[in-house]
Amino acid sequence: MRGRFLSLEGGEGAGKSTQVRALAAALQARGYVARVTREPGGSEGAEAIRALLMQGDAGRWSARSEALLFAAARADHVEKVVLPAIERGEWVICDRYLDSSRAYQGVAGGIADADVLALHAFGSAGLLPDRTYVLALPTDIGAHRAAARDGIAADRFAARGAAFHEAVSSAFDRIAADEPDRVRRIDASMAPNAVTAAILDDLSPWLA
Amino acid sequence: MRGRFLSLEGGEGAGKSTQVRALAAALQARGYVARVTREPGGSEGAEAIRALLMQGDAGRWSARSEALLFAAARADHVEKVVLPAIERGEWVICDRYLDSSRAYQGVAGGIADADVLALHAFGSAGLLPDRTYVLALPTDIGAHRAAARDGIAADRFAARGAAFHEAVSSAFDRIAADEPDRVRRIDASMAPNAVTAAILDDLSPWLA
Repeated sequence: MRGRFLSLEGGEGAGKSTQVRALAAALQARGYVARVTREPGGSEGAEAIRALLMQGDAGRWSARSEALLFAAARADHVEKVVLPAIERGEWVICDRYLDSSRAYQGVAGGIADADVLALHAFGSAGLLPDRTYVLALPTDIGAHRAAARDGIAADRFAARGAAFHEAVSSAFDRIAADEPDRVRRIDASMAPNAVTAAILDDLSPWLA
Repeated sequence: MRGRFLSLEGGEGAGKSTQVRALAAALQARGYVARVTREPGGSEGAEAIRALLMQGDAGRWSARSEALLFAAARADHVEKVVLPAIERGEWVICDRYLDSSRAYQGVAGGIADADVLALHAFGSAGLLPDRTYVLALPTDIGAHRAAARDGIAADRFAARGAAFHEAVSSAFDRIAADEPDRVRRIDASMAPNAVTAAILDDLSPWLA
């Protein structure tokens, strides 16, 4: 039987990594094989591309080069890791996926949503998760959480601009509103175990 | 005044690198600023992507990941190096460009020409050279030249398959036939200085 593909999305500090791990543990406890992965990265080639994307100064890549590199990394990750695992019947839980490209590159780079989707259609045959959870959190709370976690001054995070983070947050909300069958918005201001419970409740029709 | 953008294309051993250098020297001798560059690469970011494309085993990337990486490298090269030089009034002479993606990825990866062109439209606003020279050479001669130059056994080169090289050569011929205003086919079996002279003769309307 074909497995399931879930992605978790949201701004900085929304708790994606925590929830990805908690979900995998909860599914494993129910007897499923659950694999945690992330983007950009998740496969050997895509992690090499991730290094190019993450290293260097902020202006290293134009928005369009960056969009092509994300699409290349995603194509490798989907081909080498995501699809084979789904075909083996596993659950794949991905920390960020296509919607992050739509939100961040759309907002930060002014790339049209249709262009991001066209690159994804070319590189990854347009593969969408079976379900995507947007972890929604007021951006000021997310900024504080991310600063506390990463051990960096809040003003370094804040330097990216509150307006930018608000725009990313709005982009995720818009995607959730436009694609209600695939995308569910979860209130990430709840305690972590309550967030996990909300996701598992939503998944219950798929759980034996 | 805006400069000129030339690309040289062709299979292995056709003499592209030799002609790129000879052309630059000839233009410099006539008082022009001429810049030699190459693809994949030619800018700091694109050379980093080149390393990803050239290292590792032949199956490291799928054809689609590879096409996206080439397009990302080209976008960076065009933005950072090619366009600024043209805008400064320089001649830019590029060892391989878009037509190599069309020929190699079309043939080797089965990527549709329209898809390669769509990635180029997205990444580099579809920038085409003012003139492209396809250095045409029977593929068996090119194989022997490349083997002699690279100091490797002819059968390692030949191992890539004569049919593959024939298909690449046919793809370049097709592009030249389809776009006669931009693309000129040059007989590369002539002596190198005769090839250079033929290119300069073709360029003479643009030379003061």
